[in-house]
Amino acid sequence: MNLPISIDDVEAAAARLAGVAVRTPVLTSEAADAMAGARVFFKCENLQRIGAFKFRGAFNALSRFNEAARRTGVITYSSGNHAQAIALAARLLDMPALIVMPADAPSIKIAATRSHGAKIVFYDRYTEDREALGSRLAAERQMTLIPPYDHSDVMAGQGTAALELIDDVGPLDALFVCVGGGGLISGCAVAAAARSPGCRVIGVEPQAGDDVRQSLARGERVRIAVPQTLADGAQTQSPGELTFAVMRALVAEVVTVDDAALIGTMRWMAEQLKLVVEPTGCLAAAAALTPRPELAGQRIGVVLSGGNVDLARFATLVGTQS
Amino acid sequence: MNLPISIDDVEAAAARLAGVAVRTPVLTSEAADAMAGARVFFKCENLQRIGAFKFRGAFNALSRFNEAARRTGVITYSSGNHAQAIALAARLLDMPALIVMPADAPSIKIAATRSHGAKIVFYDRYTEDREALGSRLAAERQMTLIPPYDHSDVMAGQGTAALELIDDVGPLDALFVCVGGGGLISGCAVAAAARSPGCRVIGVEPQAGDDVRQSLARGERVRIAVPQTLADGAQTQSPGELTFAVMRALVAEVVTVDDAALIGTMRWMAEQLKLVVEPTGCLAAAAALTPRPELAGQRIGVVLSGGNVDLARFATLVGTQS
Repeated sequence: MNLPISIDDVEAAAARLAGVAVRTPVLTSEAADAMAGARVFFKCENLQRIGAFKFRGAFNALSRFNEAARRTGVITYSSGNHAQAIALAARLLDMPALIVMPADAPSIKIAATRSHGAKIVFYDRYTEDREALGSRLAAERQMTLIPPYDHSDVMAGQGTAALELIDDVGPLDALFVCVGGGGLISGCAVAAAARSPGCRVIGVEPQAGDDVRQSLARGERVRIAVPQTLADGAQTQSPGELTFAVMRALVAEVVTVDDAALIGTMRWMAEQLKLVVEPTGCLAAAAALTPRPELAGQRIGVVLSGGNVDLARFATLVGTQS
Repeated sequence: MNLPISIDDVEAAAARLAGVAVRTPVLTSEAADAMAGARVFFKCENLQRIGAFKFRGAFNALSRFNEAARRTGVITYSSGNHAQAIALAARLLDMPALIVMPADAPSIKIAATRSHGAKIVFYDRYTEDREALGSRLAAERQMTLIPPYDHSDVMAGQGTAALELIDDVGPLDALFVCVGGGGLISGCAVAAAARSPGCRVIGVEPQAGDDVRQSLARGERVRIAVPQTLADGAQTQSPGELTFAVMRALVAEVVTVDDAALIGTMRWMAEQLKLVVEPTGCLAAAAALTPRPELAGQRIGVVLSGGNVDLARFATLVGTQS
């Protein structure tokens, strides 16, 4: 297979991230094992720098800039975690950063992005095209555009999450990963294919927007309306070109989870694992904790992708009686 | 010094706990470092089995029972986390367990204790003497009483938290530990004295009940009324005899934290570290994140002791605007 990234790219990213990214802990839970009917390993990317896996891809991409590109800096568009990741990585690498963000992004994500010294340009998620705006600004200011997922350095960086997980706990029978644009799952699928051959990589999308599931079923990229879901990190309308190529080759299936299940999983994560996990970060866990006969007794990896949720909103969601 | 426990006891406990207790992760945070004006290492015992450090002492104590004692089983009294810890350790070691619990203990703790198969006897925290009740039941049923803190095997087990922390991150200049009856801090102080000589061990009590601070100031154990505080794991009225001997020798000072600061710290932990930490578990962090000139730029350890809090209560506490 001639895929956009290889295990060599993921390993090179891991070397760049060593000592910079957090080697996040892997947690287990008897309660989770009992629910899933399997042995479950949670990779806690909510405990990553900026509270999400996105730091991996952003830092990997920016650390490959040449001197001229570092001087003019980086631009990106993002609903939140990628924005923070680019902002922090740019600060660590001492380069300017400009972020195109939806005006309705969670305030915690806007504040965190600003706190790293990045400049922000807002757009309307429902009427404006962030990619066109990003490209125009990049050209005007001669900044390098690093998109949130459809970029080989970003994908390779995200794959280090699965690389660490498998290196820490050993081979897996299945790996559940949330799917927005596909950056995380494509990197993780490449890592899993190399480190744990035969591992079944299962993507999880919000029920409100299964653009990747539809695209894989059709064999071509499908574009949908902006999904209305709590999982604000997975409100993508279409998979990326590069990520789709990897997903077609390496993702076994895509399942969906509705918002009610996400809330139940957020509550379970707080109560049982003592973790704050954002709605998007609960996608993979919600699917993995639903028992499947074919995975009974097997070893299952779950990426908890992030923990950035407004605290008042979190409290409202988990405080509601089920 | 001839103390009730030595570093050998803590190391022996660590060997017994290897592969049974979670070697909990140590988290760091740029935001915490900025607040404290120091380098802060959080030992996440909220991610320990049963959601608190108490599993360490309980399992260490029970694993030393002889065959006859295992058959008749263990009895204890506890406001919650020690109860769960004894219940789980007893299940793992296949022995009966009877827990004397206050009727107003958090429901999450009662349910968790029952889920491990222990039997529960309730008492009134404000009118009945749990120690007398525990001793009477132990004699009647020929069960071995393992109190929540004033027992050398319990203290040695709790000390493994600091042992792991220092072994993982290196020597510390100061170590903040919450103080209820003193089991955790006495074990941790013995570990710190051996592994990080010169480390300043600082105890943290709720402002509503500073029995240990008073006792250390007077040079003898003081008994106070049941403290009314959110920190339900630190509502002790007096230090233990064994724990007091260790604290007199090895604890540099004791400071207090009020309930408002505990709520602020719970909120900070959820927002910045993505962790659910119970009020008692926030005591040490609340003190450590308050800057002190003499600790500026130094290396500070903080034990986050537990994460067992009713989720609805947690949501109410962290959801309230500050």
